[in-house]
Amino acid sequence: MSLTVVGSIAFDAVRTPFGERPRMLGGSAVHFALAASFFDRVRIVGPVGDDWSPAEEAVLSGRGVVCEDIVHVRGGRTFFWSGVYGWDLNDRETLDTQLGVFEGFAPRLSPAAAAADVLFLANIQPDLQRAVRTQARDARFVALDSMNLWIEVARDALVAAISEVDCVILNDAELRQLTGAPNLIRAAREVLGWGPSAVVAKQGEYGAALITADGFFSLPAFPLADVRDPTGAGDTFAGGLVGYVAAHPEEPVDLGLLRRAMAYGTALASFNVEEFGTERVARLTGAEITDRVRALATLTQFEVDDLELRP
Amino acid sequence: MSLTVVGSIAFDAVRTPFGERPRMLGGSAVHFALAASFFDRVRIVGPVGDDWSPAEEAVLSGRGVVCEDIVHVRGGRTFFWSGVYGWDLNDRETLDTQLGVFEGFAPRLSPAAAAADVLFLANIQPDLQRAVRTQARDARFVALDSMNLWIEVARDALVAAISEVDCVILNDAELRQLTGAPNLIRAAREVLGWGPSAVVAKQGEYGAALITADGFFSLPAFPLADVRDPTGAGDTFAGGLVGYVAAHPEEPVDLGLLRRAMAYGTALASFNVEEFGTERVARLTGAEITDRVRALATLTQFEVDDLELRP
Repeated sequence: MSLTVVGSIAFDAVRTPFGERPRMLGGSAVHFALAASFFDRVRIVGPVGDDWSPAEEAVLSGRGVVCEDIVHVRGGRTFFWSGVYGWDLNDRETLDTQLGVFEGFAPRLSPAAAAADVLFLANIQPDLQRAVRTQARDARFVALDSMNLWIEVARDALVAAISEVDCVILNDAELRQLTGAPNLIRAAREVLGWGPSAVVAKQGEYGAALITADGFFSLPAFPLADVRDPTGAGDTFAGGLVGYVAAHPEEPVDLGLLRRAMAYGTALASFNVEEFGTERVARLTGAEITDRVRALATLTQFEVDDLELRP
Repeated sequence: MSLTVVGSIAFDAVRTPFGERPRMLGGSAVHFALAASFFDRVRIVGPVGDDWSPAEEAVLSGRGVVCEDIVHVRGGRTFFWSGVYGWDLNDRETLDTQLGVFEGFAPRLSPAAAAADVLFLANIQPDLQRAVRTQARDARFVALDSMNLWIEVARDALVAAISEVDCVILNDAELRQLTGAPNLIRAAREVLGWGPSAVVAKQGEYGAALITADGFFSLPAFPLADVRDPTGAGDTFAGGLVGYVAAHPEEPVDLGLLRRAMAYGTALASFNVEEFGTERVARLTGAEITDRVRALATLTQFEVDDLELRP
C-alpha cells in the first residue's frame, strides 16, 4: 500500500518562550510525512528551491519517506515562514511569509504518487487540492486540511474540494467559520452533508474530536509539562491519523478504526510539540508511540457504577 | 451525610443568540445546589433580599435542597447579574452587576450547616471562604471555586484559601493566571504544592481535566447540537462532581472516585446548557443523568490494537 501527501515543504523561523530556531525544516507536508512514515510508505509531493539541501532530505529519507516526487525549482527559494508564540503558546503572530517556489506550484503527480491507496491534501489552495484529488482517482481514502485564509478568499472552491474527499481535518474555529454554525456538532453535520464521511476537529491543547454520521468521539491532548513548539502539531496529528488508516487496507474506515486512528494522531502530535519543528518526531521510535497510545487510553477511562440518584 | 454550599444566590438577566430571559433564578450556590441535590441532602447558604419569593425557593426545595440557611436581608435586594453572549457562546460581556445584599455578606454557618460532611465554597471573596472553611472544621472533603477578579485583587488570600481545601475547581485560563505557569500541568502541580490533593480545570466547551499528585484524567464536554445558555455550567459541573464525592462517604477520595465524579459533573453541566438558567436541571431525572454518564463513557473509548509500526 502507499500514502501520498501533497503540501508545503518549508523552512520555518520560530520563537517561543522556550527557545528559538532561526531556520528549521518545516511545512505541512513534511510534518505529515514524518508522522505517517510510522504506518506506511509515504510519498511527499511539494516544491523546494535552490536552498534545499541533502541535509533536509536526509531527515525525510531517514524515516523512509520517498522523496522522488519533491519538485526542485531552479533559481527559486523554498517556502519560508516566520512566527512568534505567546507565553502560553495559545496564540502566535506571523512575522514573515515568503511563498517562494510555492507561489507557482501546480502539483502534477507521478504515476507512483497518483497510484496511492490513501491521499492527504495538506493545506494548499483548494482548487489545487481538487486537481490533485482528480489525479489520484483510485485512492480509497482521501483526507484534506485547509485554513482560515481559504475560507475567506476561496470558500466555494473549498466547499467543492471538501465534497470530493472522505475526511476533513480542520481546527474547530475554522469549522465554525466555514459553516457559520455556532457549535462543533452543527458545524460538523453541515460538512458531513457536503459529502465526507468523517469530520475531525483539531482543538489544540484540548485535543481533537471526530464526528461521523453515526457517532462522536473525543480525545484530550496528551498532558505534557513541557511544551516547546506547537508548529506542525496539526499536520503531525493528521499524519498519525491518516497513516493509521493507510496501515489498515483491509478494514473499512468506520468509527471504530477512526477512533484508534485519532489516538495515534494524538500521540504523534504530543511528541511533535515537545521539541522544535521536526526534531522530536525525526528520532521517535514506534515503541514510544505505542506506549503513549496505551497511556492515552487510560487517561480518559472511568468506571460507571450503579449509584442510585436522589429523586 | 450532608453537603453545604456557600455562595451567591442571584437573579440573572441573560441574552444569548438563542433567546433571552430578563430575570431568572441564578447564582453559583443555586446552580451548584440543584446539581448536587441528586447525590446528597444539600444545604444552601447565601443572602437574598426583599425581591426573593417563594417561587424561587420552590425551585430549590423542589429538588430537596434545604433552604433554612438562606439569609433574608430586610430592605435589601438580591444579587443581580446581567450579561450577553456572543454568537458561538464562547465569550460573554457583563452588562450589569448589582451586588445588593451580597455586598455585606459575612457567612455564619448554622450548626447544621457547619456539621456538613462535604463543603463547597463557591466563588466569593477568598477571606470569606477561609472563614467558612474554619467553621466547617470536620468536613472530610472541601472544594473551592474562584474567579479572575480575586486572582487580581486578592491573590494572597486566595492562595491561603486554596491551601486549606482538598480540591480546587477553576477555569484553565484562571489556573494559568493564578500560577503564571504556561500550561495546565505545570499550573496544576504548582497548586497541588500549596496543599490540595486535586485540581480540576474547567475547559468550557472542551470539557474538564483532573490533576492529582499521581494522575491525570480528562473528559470532553458531552456533545450537543443545541446549546442555549452556558450560565451556571461551571457551578453545575462542580455540583455534580462534589455531590458525587458526598454520595460516597465510605470511599477514599482517590483518582478512581474523582474520575467517576468528573463524569457526573460533565453530565450535569451538559444538561444545564441545554436551556436557560436552572430550567433544565430543575426538571431533570436521575435516569437521564445516568444515561448520559453511560453515553459519556463510550464517547472516549478506543481499542488499542497491536499494530507494528515501521522502524
